[in-house]
Amino acid sequence: MNLENATREELQTLEQKLAANYQEYQDAGLKLDLTRGKPGAAQLDLADEMEGSLKDKMISESGTDLRNYGGLDGIPAARKLGSEMLGLRKSEVISGDHSSLTLMYLYMLHAYYHGSQGPDTAWVREGDVKFLAIVPGYDRHFTICEELGLQMVNVDMLDEGPDMDAVDDLVRNDSMIKGMWCVPKYSNPTGNVYSEEVVERIASLGKIAGSNFRVMWDNAYGVHDLFENPQQLANVMDYCRKYGTEDNLILTASTSKITYAGGGISFLGTSEKNLEHFRKRLSVMSIGPNKLNQQRQVLFLNNIEGVRAHMRKHAEILRPKFAMVQKHLESGLGGKGMGTWCNPEGGYFVSFDALPGLAQEIVRLAGEAGVKLTPAGATFPYTRDPNDRNIRLSPTFPSVEDLDLAMQIFVTCVQLASIRKRI
Amino acid sequence: MNLENATREELQTLEQKLAANYQEYQDAGLKLDLTRGKPGAAQLDLADEMEGSLKDKMISESGTDLRNYGGLDGIPAARKLGSEMLGLRKSEVISGDHSSLTLMYLYMLHAYYHGSQGPDTAWVREGDVKFLAIVPGYDRHFTICEELGLQMVNVDMLDEGPDMDAVDDLVRNDSMIKGMWCVPKYSNPTGNVYSEEVVERIASLGKIAGSNFRVMWDNAYGVHDLFENPQQLANVMDYCRKYGTEDNLILTASTSKITYAGGGISFLGTSEKNLEHFRKRLSVMSIGPNKLNQQRQVLFLNNIEGVRAHMRKHAEILRPKFAMVQKHLESGLGGKGMGTWCNPEGGYFVSFDALPGLAQEIVRLAGEAGVKLTPAGATFPYTRDPNDRNIRLSPTFPSVEDLDLAMQIFVTCVQLASIRKRI
Repeated sequence: MNLENATREELQTLEQKLAANYQEYQDAGLKLDLTRGKPGAAQLDLADEMEGSLKDKMISESGTDLRNYGGLDGIPAARKLGSEMLGLRKSEVISGDHSSLTLMYLYMLHAYYHGSQGPDTAWVREGDVKFLAIVPGYDRHFTICEELGLQMVNVDMLDEGPDMDAVDDLVRNDSMIKGMWCVPKYSNPTGNVYSEEVVERIASLGKIAGSNFRVMWDNAYGVHDLFENPQQLANVMDYCRKYGTEDNLILTASTSKITYAGGGISFLGTSEKNLEHFRKRLSVMSIGPNKLNQQRQVLFLNNIEGVRAHMRKHAEILRPKFAMVQKHLESGLGGKGMGTWCNPEGGYFVSFDALPGLAQEIVRLAGEAGVKLTPAGATFPYTRDPNDRNIRLSPTFPSVEDLDLAMQIFVTCVQLASIRKRI
Repeated sequence: MNLENATREELQTLEQKLAANYQEYQDAGLKLDLTRGKPGAAQLDLADEMEGSLKDKMISESGTDLRNYGGLDGIPAARKLGSEMLGLRKSEVISGDHSSLTLMYLYMLHAYYHGSQGPDTAWVREGDVKFLAIVPGYDRHFTICEELGLQMVNVDMLDEGPDMDAVDDLVRNDSMIKGMWCVPKYSNPTGNVYSEEVVERIASLGKIAGSNFRVMWDNAYGVHDLFENPQQLANVMDYCRKYGTEDNLILTASTSKITYAGGGISFLGTSEKNLEHFRKRLSVMSIGPNKLNQQRQVLFLNNIEGVRAHMRKHAEILRPKFAMVQKHLESGLGGKGMGTWCNPEGGYFVSFDALPGLAQEIVRLAGEAGVKLTPAGATFPYTRDPNDRNIRLSPTFPSVEDLDLAMQIFVTCVQLASIRKRI
């Protein structure tokens, strides 16, 4: 049955049946959670041999006592690993503590108040600075902009990445736009991988937007493939070198969703010139990152090949979870005209677009039946989804069994809300 | 021989002898470093059993998976340890990653740009805000003020703590003074412990200075006693409760100089109301600290009694080092009128005051003879020591043997510079 073709009576009958199912779910008093992109315990277990691995390895090869103070850039071995993950030269990467979000925040703060290339370039001096938000996108990126008072301008995510014609237009016509957020591989939440053409166009933006424009390239899921022979992401820095826009690019990544979500290490990569300025900020607030935890990660992962081998184990755990989500979406909503969704080949999320105006209602219904979803609107700046339709599903943390049940309930809620809208 | 009584000839003879000694040191091509307050390797060794201690202990007692995301405040056990170290209620303390400097920076940033009690209270809105710097003091405190553009006003350190009459006067007569830095126990670099009267007077400042004044109480050396039955520091929060000034107080500490300097955990304590505001900042930049490292520290240290027991082992290692410094200062400079110095009962530093105008020259002489000292002026805001006399000596990192040699050279440099000034 497709929503468009059904008679009013058919819909009313179905609504009653769904409402009865829904009531049963409510009565069961379930507590299921699909809100955040957390790894499951089985993924974390894969890294447990890290603990204890530093015995007699607390002095680095070059003689640095990793237990003591110092080393603002992170240990050389961690910078090397980061450079392999980001596709950069080692001198272009620093390694921090476990949160790449913190590095992003600090870089944005630096660019806003202190200037990415010195005080004269501080965004705050230029007036009401704006930032492009690719939507739907990652709430924590948007929150950083809100915190700093940067006005966000939405640009749609298309299949190949951001709508680059729109980006070009905006950047050409509004000199107050000073940057954009990108999650280039398995984008949060839509799961897209930016095409080579999009990557090249983004790399060339600095030529239009000027030296104070920053592409915040958050490659959070760069190695988070679910299948063999994954789609490749082009090396954006190579294209920046071609266009002479190396200073316009800030890349970040971490091992948080590789080893331990709360105990990995982070990387920030950019031109050496940018790094030189950024170090001045870091040196005021820190004597250096926790070098022991960096050593622990490096001993465990070794290099990019080690990372990829480890991520194949993650993929084995995650494939059934992502498959379970697709199974319910297809069997429950396929061909019904009640919404569309992505089928990502990696990353942490599945993006679902309901009929316009129904996302909040679906999230409410699911919540009251014991399935906690990311609040509707969370994937848009200021938590305002203009069409109230996008819902982000996070299948990594729950067990396959819980996911099975949660997705049944989700599908029921989508059907119920969609049908009630038509009656 | 005292510099005041010596004849010109005596001085010239001595100068020649000292210059010859100095030349010998120079020729030896030494590389000794007394610059920063780093623990020595033997102190770090004391905590090495932490490594591996988390095996099968990565789930907390309350069932939290410490490997995963979450928990902005830090784990309850770490907050409890912090509350014991800071003398606060557990609800008044959050625990962060290894650097309390980072927490101080973030708090100052928060108060400056976002307002410690909401946007209306942001210091930046009040105009050219000032901060009191107790001098000589800790360079990294001053650098934070410089970074934020807070003008610093010097107040002298006296035997019992800051010159509180001067502080009172300044705060009463200048409403733009919004806070002060304190290292209340074994102050950096003078080694003083604030007397109970000084602590009470500082706690009462908020009544004069108003609700937007912040005492940054960096209790970095709260448990770093060299001897048994150490001088006690009064509980400043108890006095704040007496005066109703709890919101005026921000306390920090860490386990950095207890376990691993680069791998401990940090604490920030203040009123619950202040914490509630500060959490908003933290939540933008972080999903939470590294909980595994917090668990590691807590399992190792247990509680304040465990901390004290551990610090007695540190004291055994450090006492001979501090004694070596005193030995050379007394034997080489005692009664000579060439400078004064402190003899601290804990902490990480010995403060030396040369004759006015000689600190830079002594640091230069020592450096050229292979002994690297903290740059003259570093203990003052803007690195400007108005009398060019204070030098901070850091005896913890070198071996006793190196310290023996370094102090011989230091004393020679002080004598040489002092005599040359008189000739």
